[in-house]
Amino acid sequence: MASTPTAIVLGAGMVGSVMAVDLATGTGSTDALAVTIADSRPEALERARARAAAAGCSIDTIEADLADPAVLRNAIEPFDIVLGALASSIGFATLRTVIEAGKDYCDISFMPEDAIDLDALARKHDVTAIVDCGVAPGMSNLLAARGVAMLDRADSIEIYVGGLPRERRRPFEYKAGFSPADVIEEYTRPARIVEGGEIVVRPALSEPELMDFAGVGTLESFNTDGLRSLAYTMKVPDMKEKTLRYPGHIELMRVFRETGLFGHDEIEVGGTRDGAPGVRVKPIDVISKLMFPKWTYEPDEEDLTVMRIVVEGEPPAGHGRGAAAGGDGGRRVRHPGRRERHTWDLLDFYDKKTRATSMSRTTAIPCTIMARLVAAGSLRQPGVNPPELLGADEHLVEHVLAEHRARGIEYHHRVETIG
Amino acid sequence: MASTPTAIVLGAGMVGSVMAVDLATGTGSTDALAVTIADSRPEALERARARAAAAGCSIDTIEADLADPAVLRNAIEPFDIVLGALASSIGFATLRTVIEAGKDYCDISFMPEDAIDLDALARKHDVTAIVDCGVAPGMSNLLAARGVAMLDRADSIEIYVGGLPRERRRPFEYKAGFSPADVIEEYTRPARIVEGGEIVVRPALSEPELMDFAGVGTLESFNTDGLRSLAYTMKVPDMKEKTLRYPGHIELMRVFRETGLFGHDEIEVGGTRDGAPGVRVKPIDVISKLMFPKWTYEPDEEDLTVMRIVVEGEPPAGHGRGAAAGGDGGRRVRHPGRRERHTWDLLDFYDKKTRATSMSRTTAIPCTIMARLVAAGSLRQPGVNPPELLGADEHLVEHVLAEHRARGIEYHHRVETIG
Repeated sequence: MASTPTAIVLGAGMVGSVMAVDLATGTGSTDALAVTIADSRPEALERARARAAAAGCSIDTIEADLADPAVLRNAIEPFDIVLGALASSIGFATLRTVIEAGKDYCDISFMPEDAIDLDALARKHDVTAIVDCGVAPGMSNLLAARGVAMLDRADSIEIYVGGLPRERRRPFEYKAGFSPADVIEEYTRPARIVEGGEIVVRPALSEPELMDFAGVGTLESFNTDGLRSLAYTMKVPDMKEKTLRYPGHIELMRVFRETGLFGHDEIEVGGTRDGAPGVRVKPIDVISKLMFPKWTYEPDEEDLTVMRIVVEGEPPAGHGRGAAAGGDGGRRVRHPGRRERHTWDLLDFYDKKTRATSMSRTTAIPCTIMARLVAAGSLRQPGVNPPELLGADEHLVEHVLAEHRARGIEYHHRVETIG
Repeated sequence: MASTPTAIVLGAGMVGSVMAVDLATGTGSTDALAVTIADSRPEALERARARAAAAGCSIDTIEADLADPAVLRNAIEPFDIVLGALASSIGFATLRTVIEAGKDYCDISFMPEDAIDLDALARKHDVTAIVDCGVAPGMSNLLAARGVAMLDRADSIEIYVGGLPRERRRPFEYKAGFSPADVIEEYTRPARIVEGGEIVVRPALSEPELMDFAGVGTLESFNTDGLRSLAYTMKVPDMKEKTLRYPGHIELMRVFRETGLFGHDEIEVGGTRDGAPGVRVKPIDVISKLMFPKWTYEPDEEDLTVMRIVVEGEPPAGHGRGAAAGGDGGRRVRHPGRRERHTWDLLDFYDKKTRATSMSRTTAIPCTIMARLVAAGSLRQPGVNPPELLGADEHLVEHVLAEHRARGIEYHHRVETIG
């Protein structure tokens, strides 16, 4: 390319600043981009600059209220590519504004709305938007789709994922790598999974299951409402996402929920028998106040990210025994009884060198890899794309995995014949 | 006796009404007394009358504010014996008033104050007051002292006690047989135990230990601050009281406590980022409001009481082998290495016939047995007596156990040689 592409990262939180530093740094396989990071919080921008300096690169900063569409449009105007790492409250509005500005966009911002509702708008503006482009959702979608593409007929997709403190501490043995309120939302929102081709709703925290993960030990999984776009983009009869915790946490959270501590309805407390009124309070506010400080990572406290994606189904027809003997003239032989399992395993730890949490790195890197490809013109797919829409492309996925590997993040793939 | 003794029961709660009915009923071994029950709550008096009617006896009722010493003095004046089953807030003041009125008193009211502070007053008024005269404290004290009296030198007293719902229901597997607030107090107040002759303080909910109880299964014990008077009336080097719960409850309560849910200091919750103030609330008020309804027995829901008292030490010197051979002229032979263990086990269930909870029966009956003895003049011990001060009297203890048995409450005693 003639000149260095320019990128702007929206949001200078932990993930956004890891994105900015990754883009501003050249590695063996990638060039450095000219990077600007934007946020309304000067102290967040200052931390991002410090992170860049520690990494030996430099980034520009813009202090701007990104919740204001006019300010946002103005901020992104000069850049080739936009990356998003924003609070869920402004994720969807930002996506719309970026699309309307005609800018390609790679985004990890969680949003309650359905990003694909803006697909037609993105096509109209010839914008390539890749959304939910973190680790899960993100790499989970991409690899699930890769697994499906490698089978003749996929029967099931299972995604297991958790962000955990490396050291377990009682009583919760858990810290929140992102907003604790969003974590509790996961503990209360019913989980939509797919069974027999139908969307089925299971209670939050249901179907706890112990599973072993080399390097971490036995973890416990439970249903979460995390399939998101996969539930309708993939035509696979059985799909579920489960979240991973150290054993015991789930039961505690079930007790908290059943006790009413996660309730959003006000209760009156502290009134006296002689009629003095109490105060009205939402239990969720009380438990948040008490619990969230205990769920917050201390400086340099190490986290880990563990993920397993399992896709099972009928393997592609190959040249069978008859073919090898030349007896069927090269006709493909199906093995309808045979089944194959593709598993991808991720286990990633806090990065002591860059002092970046595993959660921020595993979330930021998929997005920067995609953003570089889009900025370089080698990935163009106008519309709003969740990552599974890219998973059929073997070379793309291999590139994404290799770029992760170059940054010390290994996805291990194995294939088993399961009868 | 010339005439039927008259008794007044102070407090018409569950325990008080069971007391009144027991006293008003003759059994094979006891005559009926003329019984009056007093309370400020007309509906509690009505329930007590209904309970008496169902039992085929009749009791008188007095609606009176027992918190008022003048009213109390007036109420008890005509009676031979007074029994107390009162809220902890008025337990001590009532004891003082009853003593000053010169009335003998048998009491199960829990009180934060030290009843023995009124010992001199009781002696001065020639009043026999038996306090803490329920199941635990109560029978636990009496039987511990009996065990000590049966040994030459007691080394240890262990008391394990729990009131539990017969059916376990998630998540708590617990219901409170008395004030839930007092239960939480047990989960937070450090436990004083005696080790090596010294009072040692252990955290609440500490030293969980699984123990098997025939007819109930495995329960979990934890330190509670329940030795009370035993800690200084008994000169035994190692003494502890532990409370029993179904396994798992303790860990939950530890988590609740460590999360801050049992805190009495106000916290501010529900404020917004833009500075709108929140409300100030005590976490204990919130968790009480949410949890106590789940800790409340439903009508006719069955409870159980389980208790084990273990006293170990050196058995009394007996006529040894040499004595049997006549070689030592009948001199007593000590066996300093030999040790003996006395164990009393109680397992009692909800009484379907009288619809009385096990907790109310096991608490009320020790008090009525003692009250009958005091009223009959066969138990006189001026002063404020916790039950252990009566435990050396073998005949008294045998009578108390036999009277329990006559009411379907069995304390099983066993003796083992332990090397």
